[in-house]
Amino acid sequence: MNLSPHPGDRKKNLMTDTADLDTTTPDGTDDVGTPHHGYITDKDRYLARLKRIEGQARGIYKMVDQEQYCIDILTQVSALTSALESVALGLLDDHLKHCVVDAVKLGGDEGEAKIKEASDAIARLVRS
Amino acid sequence: MNLSPHPGDRKKNLMTDTADLDTTTPDGTDDVGTPHHGYITDKDRYLARLKRIEGQARGIYKMVDQEQYCIDILTQVSALTSALESVALGLLDDHLKHCVVDAVKLGGDEGEAKIKEASDAIARLVRS
Amino acid sequence: MNLSPHPGDRKKNLMTDTADLDTTTPDGTDDVGTPHHGYITDKDRYLARLKRIEGQARGIYKMVDQEQYCIDILTQVSALTSALESVALGLLDDHLKHCVVDAVKLGGDEGEAKIKEASDAIARLVRS
Amino acid sequence: MNLSPHPGDRKKNLMTDTADLDTTTPDGTDDVGTPHHGYITDKDRYLARLKRIEGQARGIYKMVDQEQYCIDILTQVSALTSALESVALGLLDDHLKHCVVDAVKLGGDEGEAKIKEASDAIARLVRS
Repeated sequence: MNLSPHPGDRKKNLMTDTADLDTTTPDGTDDVGTPHHGYITDKDRYLARLKRIEGQARGIYKMVDQEQYCIDILTQVSALTSALESVALGLLDDHLKHCVVDAVKLGGDEGEAKIKEASDAIARLVRS
Repeated sequence: MNLSPHPGDRKKNLMTDTADLDTTTPDGTDDVGTPHHGYITDKDRYLARLKRIEGQARGIYKMVDQEQYCIDILTQVSALTSALESVALGLLDDHLKHCVVDAVKLGGDEGEAKIKEASDAIARLVRS
Repeated sequence: MNLSPHPGDRKKNLMTDTADLDTTTPDGTDDVGTPHHGYITDKDRYLARLKRIEGQARGIYKMVDQEQYCIDILTQVSALTSALESVALGLLDDHLKHCVVDAVKLGGDEGEAKIKEASDAIARLVRS
Repeated sequence: MNLSPHPGDRKKNLMTDTADLDTTTPDGTDDVGTPHHGYITDKDRYLARLKRIEGQARGIYKMVDQEQYCIDILTQVSALTSALESVALGLLDDHLKHCVVDAVKLGGDEGEAKIKEASDAIARLVRS
């Protein structure tokens, strides 16, 4: 059961859209033409990066627990922040390339709404 | 067993210093006058925050695994980045208040070296 | 005299595009159907903000020249950085809404190229 | 004429302090031993950088006025933000090295107050 309100709709839209996209872009579909979510092509890579990020967070917990040197902890926090930013920029790029492009191509208000939503997410990233 | 090369030295310095500090600042020592590390007063609070941060990282992993909506994932990444920044700013403040102040009071090159080190850490934070 | 290599081409594309867009979106054209650039609707507001930003930069110069207190100068630098970020986020939002949407609607590689370019700009903003 | 409420006081403190500092650090005084503010050693360099920053701000104003390509403008905004961050990190480093160190050496509450103030400025920088 998927609790997100979006994936279902998006899957349907993507199915239509990736059919169109097949002529121009080879990505977005696997070998047998099954469409998938924007970021699913790289899903394993994202999961591996996020697993590593979780490990970095656990490492920082241990450093504080062992009362290691503050500056060394700060260095690890900066590294973790950078790793998170990279993941966020990757997800955002995938989102623009797939969800936003698909919504724009469908026309109507949906494209505009997706861009407003993406801009808000970018603002949160820049300011966080 | 403490693997860090620093705590031992720092504990010694702090012991001397917090003895001096007792007349001017009540913090830095507990009720029976035992000195502790810069951030140890709040150690439990830091550990609780870092445990939560680790949980946030795990939550983002799950969101990607369940292919939840990109924008919702990005919102969580921004929240996690902000939480990490808060921890970093807290650790840095503690570091300046304790390690740097102690080193400056000891005089000599040590204070200068500590400030150089803190400035480098600040630059990494601002740029990450 | 316009030194930019882009506006001419873009004006032409937009002219074609906004003609198409008229049926789906009322924005992008004024009452008599004259097309304009992505950010030109708010051009005066952007110019007013940038004039203020230039004044803030000049103010910081004066503060250093008068050897005012470092922390007060840093406060002004943070305010200026925030003002710049706001302008950047506004420009980016306008860019996505207009240039990127127009390019995606034209189809072909152009849309993909515009999104790659926007993602790179977002990464520079997030990391700067 | 100096409009800042601080320099007078700080000059006095620094005079005392740099007398002490003379034995350990050669910087902070000029050839005839006249003490000066934390950042004055590099004042000309800061002024040159800030003059360039003001020019960058004016350049961005012109780019918008000439309706140059959004992405090119964003690139210049990112460059300006980075230049401002570098100036801020430099000023902060100077502030820690001089004002904060001097206040800590004087002892009493002043050192603690300076560190609180510096931490707040760092938080504004990290979050801006």
